[in-house]
Amino acid sequence: MADASGILGEYKLKIDKALSDFFDRKIKDAEAIDSSAADIMKSLKEFNLRGGKRIRPALMIHGYKCFGKPAEKDIISASLAVELMEGFLLIHDDVTDQDDLRRGGPTFHKIYERRYSSLKRISPKRFGENIAIVAADIQNSLANEALAMSNFPAENINSALKKYHEIALKTESGWLIETMIYAKPASEVTEKDVMKVNTFKTAAYTIEGPLHMGAMLAGTGEDNIKTLSSFAMPLGQAFQLQDDILGMFGDEKKLGKPVGSDLKEGKITLLIVKALEKANEEDKKTLLDALGNKDLARKELDGVRKIIKDTGSLDYSRKLAEKLINQAKRALEKADFRKEGKDFLIGIADFLIKREY
Amino acid sequence: MADASGILGEYKLKIDKALSDFFDRKIKDAEAIDSSAADIMKSLKEFNLRGGKRIRPALMIHGYKCFGKPAEKDIISASLAVELMEGFLLIHDDVTDQDDLRRGGPTFHKIYERRYSSLKRISPKRFGENIAIVAADIQNSLANEALAMSNFPAENINSALKKYHEIALKTESGWLIETMIYAKPASEVTEKDVMKVNTFKTAAYTIEGPLHMGAMLAGTGEDNIKTLSSFAMPLGQAFQLQDDILGMFGDEKKLGKPVGSDLKEGKITLLIVKALEKANEEDKKTLLDALGNKDLARKELDGVRKIIKDTGSLDYSRKLAEKLINQAKRALEKADFRKEGKDFLIGIADFLIKREY
Repeated sequence: MADASGILGEYKLKIDKALSDFFDRKIKDAEAIDSSAADIMKSLKEFNLRGGKRIRPALMIHGYKCFGKPAEKDIISASLAVELMEGFLLIHDDVTDQDDLRRGGPTFHKIYERRYSSLKRISPKRFGENIAIVAADIQNSLANEALAMSNFPAENINSALKKYHEIALKTESGWLIETMIYAKPASEVTEKDVMKVNTFKTAAYTIEGPLHMGAMLAGTGEDNIKTLSSFAMPLGQAFQLQDDILGMFGDEKKLGKPVGSDLKEGKITLLIVKALEKANEEDKKTLLDALGNKDLARKELDGVRKIIKDTGSLDYSRKLAEKLINQAKRALEKADFRKEGKDFLIGIADFLIKREY
Repeated sequence: MADASGILGEYKLKIDKALSDFFDRKIKDAEAIDSSAADIMKSLKEFNLRGGKRIRPALMIHGYKCFGKPAEKDIISASLAVELMEGFLLIHDDVTDQDDLRRGGPTFHKIYERRYSSLKRISPKRFGENIAIVAADIQNSLANEALAMSNFPAENINSALKKYHEIALKTESGWLIETMIYAKPASEVTEKDVMKVNTFKTAAYTIEGPLHMGAMLAGTGEDNIKTLSSFAMPLGQAFQLQDDILGMFGDEKKLGKPVGSDLKEGKITLLIVKALEKANEEDKKTLLDALGNKDLARKELDGVRKIIKDTGSLDYSRKLAEKLINQAKRALEKADFRKEGKDFLIGIADFLIKREY
């Protein structure tokens, strides 16, 4: 059995190095244009290197390794595309969600809101958001460039680029679906609604997309792409369920963010849906009052956690996540993939469900 | 001499038809996902078909025609990429500029702000902007898809996609440069500043980018790409100068928007820079008071127009635009391009400077 967590750690170092070098080149290019363009590149570098497990590029690399042995340098360069895509999506997401914190530091718009707090002709808040909107667009282009410039056959790059935009479209559709679902009363949101959001908003760009892009760079055929989907979709769902559980019951130090923040933001996870289904009227009221309450006290959060446990909702999510992980692993059983790639995928499935951060 | 304006009109019909068909397919795809995703596609269709001269796709088509005779259907499909790119940039631009009107209708964020005016959990303004941020991201992916899916050799598509993101990066850098320039006092902004913004923010994605992308799809070499740049950069500058002149002195009915809106928004054009340079203290004060005054009265606007004329600033911009157009046309004189493409480029240069809308 491959030590997927160890391999992930090794690749994190390599990916971080490549990401840092990539941005240093971009900063240099931008300096030739204008100091303000260079300044944005520097901020993007800091933002992208601030944290992250690099699961997506590691999956892209091993999506390739299921079908061929790439030159290490080439596949790492190409894999920056999915890491940069995530950053681009997060920057826009933080603006739309009006979040202040990301990866233990200020969100991108907050960096500029604070740095230009004495602006007069435009409000610093507006200015910060404007810079973030455009900086994320820049990063989206950098992501495409990382892939387009990579050292693989043009046909394969082309397929991977098409996939990039198919995933981006799915993720953005997932965001839209979520936004519209949240416009209805929380007690009417169903398990099906939540799983649909998770499929489009998370599973596609976290697991399936990176694997497909790697596999496509290796030039594999439609059958293998389908097998990867059968692995990726349940794993992506399980990943999100585990994320929700950690967000509610995890260790703040390991997570690097306060527990309960999903709840405070009004995010309706499967934990909430199932707890609302089973709770008595009083507990239901407690849950609904807590949902979206930005000033939620620790005591109230503990009350919510107790309800999620007592109603069996936590168990429900845990068991569903386990079931999905097993489903994912079974999908690979008969797959005739190269050992190095396949072992990592099976190992990472176990890691993603057992992780504490 | 080619009737470039007539050819542009013919292509506008063909491009509009292709754009409409493209969105109809996307609406159908989105309906299979979710009604909210389909709704966004419908709004994007309306927004994109609302107006526009289709100069960018027409230039991309003729960039190709300088070097080869493409299948009409294939090059029109691919050329949607630059039209869709413009729409994506405009939607984000309208959010950052907080504009209400675009092409004679509401801006994208205003459509959703108004449609969801009774939302309670989120302000309709925030909601409209959020939808616009994500919808534009979706349109950016559609633009890439239109190019990636097109019927040309993979190598050529790849080069054109790289160019797409190079232009996007330039345009966004131009936006940043402009934003930072506008943070300094208006009277300190120089001709050089304004021309730099025009080069990055307008010339690249309006003229040079589309021509390069068409030429790259035809697989032409580096020399021809350079010749196209020598034509495109001065033409793009002249295009922006003419835009500024029309925005201040044009016919509102032909323009489809009120004159003086740049001034009211605080946009510092070359007309303003040169007028500030030459005006006496009293006129200078009138100009600075008018700049960024959203409630500017017609009488005050007329005062500004008189100063721009009396200081010789209007003449300066007109002459510079003419000089740039001649420079552009001269760059093509010795170019060994196919007649159909070259004639259109020369014709469009004259059209762009003489246009009244």
